[in-house]
Amino acid sequence: MNVIKWREMEPQQVTEEGASKTTIRVLLGPDLGVPNFVMRLFEIEPGGQTPLHSHEWEHEIFILSGSGICVSTEGETPVGVHDAVFVPPGEKHCFRNTGDEMLRVICLIPATFSHRQ
Amino acid sequence: MNVIKWREMEPQQVTEEGASKTTIRVLLGPDLGVPNFVMRLFEIEPGGQTPLHSHEWEHEIFILSGSGICVSTEGETPVGVHDAVFVPPGEKHCFRNTGDEMLRVICLIPATFSHRQ
Repeated sequence: MNVIKWREMEPQQVTEEGASKTTIRVLLGPDLGVPNFVMRLFEIEPGGQTPLHSHEWEHEIFILSGSGICVSTEGETPVGVHDAVFVPPGEKHCFRNTGDEMLRVICLIPATFSHRQ
Repeated sequence: MNVIKWREMEPQQVTEEGASKTTIRVLLGPDLGVPNFVMRLFEIEPGGQTPLHSHEWEHEIFILSGSGICVSTEGETPVGVHDAVFVPPGEKHCFRNTGDEMLRVICLIPATFSHRQ
């Protein structure tokens, strides 16, 4: 077993077009030989957002702190601390921090796509 | 997309032999048609524990609150709030709440095994 302390990991800026004020850390991923899915932690500063995009894989998300909106084909959905969010494959989406504290989420994807976000 | 508020879900007692004072909620699972992995939330009361067992699938865990130990083939490993934990397939393990507040974790498994724990 492995115990990972994310505060000891260096965050990487998300550079995909449309992203702003957002970092990623891969907590449980290829380095540990995870067989099926990868756990990442994102931090989105107030006013920041992830890119508005769609892809063939799903997101399973749990919000650790902060609040914001998820923009999707369904419009703008408020999300906040301790919500779990499922974004199905193919659905356009982005997360925007509309609050005044860090929007911190864990977000899992299939390991097959772990080189993507 | 789906936003799930776990506090509105009814917890189910974990009844597997060896478990005590532990409940489970399936946050993102078959009801939503998740394609690859299932997110569950466990609450382990002070003094409680999950069963000491092994199985052919992995756990990917994130600790939301509390503290305790993970008992595994590697001995007893302290775990606490905001640790991420990977338990590989086949490794014997249990989580025990040795603190004085609720040990609350999210724990993901492959969807193939979502009828198990």
